Amino acid sequence: MKAGLPPEDAIVQRLAAAFATRRRDVKTGIGDDAAILAAPARLAVTTDVLLEDHDFRKDSDPRRLGRKALNVNLSDLAAMGATPLWAVIALGLPKKTRPDWLDALTEGLREAAAEHGVAVVGGDLSASEKIFVSVTVMGQAPEKPLLRSGAEPGDALYVSGTLGAAAAGLRLLEAGYRLSREKDVLDPKGRRVPAQRAPEKARLIRHQIDPRPQLELGIALAHGGLASAAIDVSDGLARDLYRLCRASDVGATVDASLLPADSALQDFAGVLHLDPLATALYGGEDFGLLFTVPRRKQAAIEALTGRFALRRIGTIDDGAGVRLVRDGKRAPLPDAGFDHFDP
Amino acid sequence: MKAGLPPEDAIVQRLAAAFATRRRDVKTGIGDDAAILAAPARLAVTTDVLLEDHDFRKDSDPRRLGRKALNVNLSDLAAMGATPLWAVIALGLPKKTRPDWLDALTEGLREAAAEHGVAVVGGDLSASEKIFVSVTVMGQAPEKPLLRSGAEPGDALYVSGTLGAAAAGLRLLEAGYRLSREKDVLDPKGRRVPAQRAPEKARLIRHQIDPRPQLELGIALAHGGLASAAIDVSDGLARDLYRLCRASDVGATVDASLLPADSALQDFAGVLHLDPLATALYGGEDFGLLFTVPRRKQAAIEALTGRFALRRIGTIDDGAGVRLVRDGKRAPLPDAGFDHFDP
Repeated sequence: MKAGLPPEDAIVQRLAAAFATRRRDVKTGIGDDAAILAAPARLAVTTDVLLEDHDFRKDSDPRRLGRKALNVNLSDLAAMGATPLWAVIALGLPKKTRPDWLDALTEGLREAAAEHGVAVVGGDLSASEKIFVSVTVMGQAPEKPLLRSGAEPGDALYVSGTLGAAAAGLRLLEAGYRLSREKDVLDPKGRRVPAQRAPEKARLIRHQIDPRPQLELGIALAHGGLASAAIDVSDGLARDLYRLCRASDVGATVDASLLPADSALQDFAGVLHLDPLATALYGGEDFGLLFTVPRRKQAAIEALTGRFALRRIGTIDDGAGVRLVRDGKRAPLPDAGFDHFDP
Repeated sequence: MKAGLPPEDAIVQRLAAAFATRRRDVKTGIGDDAAILAAPARLAVTTDVLLEDHDFRKDSDPRRLGRKALNVNLSDLAAMGATPLWAVIALGLPKKTRPDWLDALTEGLREAAAEHGVAVVGGDLSASEKIFVSVTVMGQAPEKPLLRSGAEPGDALYVSGTLGAAAAGLRLLEAGYRLSREKDVLDPKGRRVPAQRAPEKARLIRHQIDPRPQLELGIALAHGGLASAAIDVSDGLARDLYRLCRASDVGATVDASLLPADSALQDFAGVLHLDPLATALYGGEDFGLLFTVPRRKQAAIEALTGRFALRRIGTIDDGAGVRLVRDGKRAPLPDAGFDHFDP
């Protein structure tokens, strides 16, 4: 039995077949020196890498890894209010990678691309010790993209979805819990978790390994001119709010009692040794949108709450930095969260 | 003394300053969730990674590494006849990377970008064990891009530049030769190579570590409708010619006596234990353009030989595969060359 990958050109041929498209905006796709695309006048472009041992473990489900590699990029387009169009994908794979592992990764990429109207139009293959998936996505930017820099004092501060679920899911994975292919939750010893506690654990793990980009929300915010600034919550609410405030040259005050901490954080606080508030503030990878809304647009935002889970969590002010109000006390919020280069 | 890199946001700020641009086609550059660009109607996009221990060694000159990481991508645009516009760059860096190393890498990227009219508009940072530089470039495609698939039987086959110099340069590096910052050539023991032999060695090493994308040639070929098909020679003449022939569903016959083997290959054949013809056929990374020319355009091509080093090396035919004529004998040319996944 032959192990490992076939020659490079054979892999490229397989990938070209998997990502074949009839879209009229793709003039030349995978297989030439560059893709040729019919582009919109306003293009949004972003790039993001998932790297083994840093962003995922070698035994991660390759299909969900493929989904996440594309979806974290799409989350950046969502934060601009852009509509996804195309992706190019550079893969680093160990020579001994099993072909069915690559097929599953490809399937995950293909699935997420299909869900969000993305055509995969090119890429690059490298042999590498550690797996990496380096994705660049392009999309159509709205007439007024959602920048980080548009927030003004007096704007309301909103976040979508819940906070901390992805971080709690990471804790479960680190403790040895797994999702099986049959979607059962397995405990660190490989036994099925009792049905009563399984759905919550499965949901938290899914938040971590299979995040969903908030593209429709981003588009709604941009097209209605509803948000003055936006960022996606990838490195934690605190860190990303600091980024938004610095870009806008404003401050913010957040009300702890308004934070949409995921309901499971309280339930699992004991088991996972986590502080629900800290997890909501500093846990990364929730991939909701954090955005600011001028006073005159707040009624329009409230009207969106039927379609999207939105929560007002505070107010932009003309101070510097971010303050947290908790139990009636107001204190500076540390600018902490995920940093790739933390020692 | 503090070693290693500063926090991620501080690095991003440094990179944003290094790549700051006033170009009107860049609406939003580094520092938001995505770049916003004023795009041409026909966009060309390609991506390519340089990875430590596979594409370069850890002790490589970081400035030239930055140049090469961008330039190998621009070579793919050249092969389409496209005009470069923008790049996004995902960097993987060990946590203990010295800040001046990153500054030199940045300087190399900035230099190559400036030389070719590229604005660096976004990127991503990861901590990683091995260094990688994953670049995606975008450009304006010509009305009729140079595809691999347009060659027809009877077309003449041309290549630009010389063949084998980059492979010979790699042999020198593998043997321990180095270019110093002062552009001296150092032998494996670190001694300066005598002035008489230094320029040739320096030139070969430069071909390997600092290749030049043939953008002007690609643009001239595309805008004049002169080439029916094109590819850049990255994995060796033979391998890339096979790719062009497969894409065009044609064969080719190459005349060994016409190959522009670099003049130094003969000189260094003994010292470097290389066969000049094999090196010209199978040595990768020359980054010239290999292209085909219909009969009616051959006079126009000959008129370009004043501006570009072009050589007719053979003819496209309706066979399958590639044949080499040598000393009056005609034999199939093996489809060999660089493959990332060779065991």
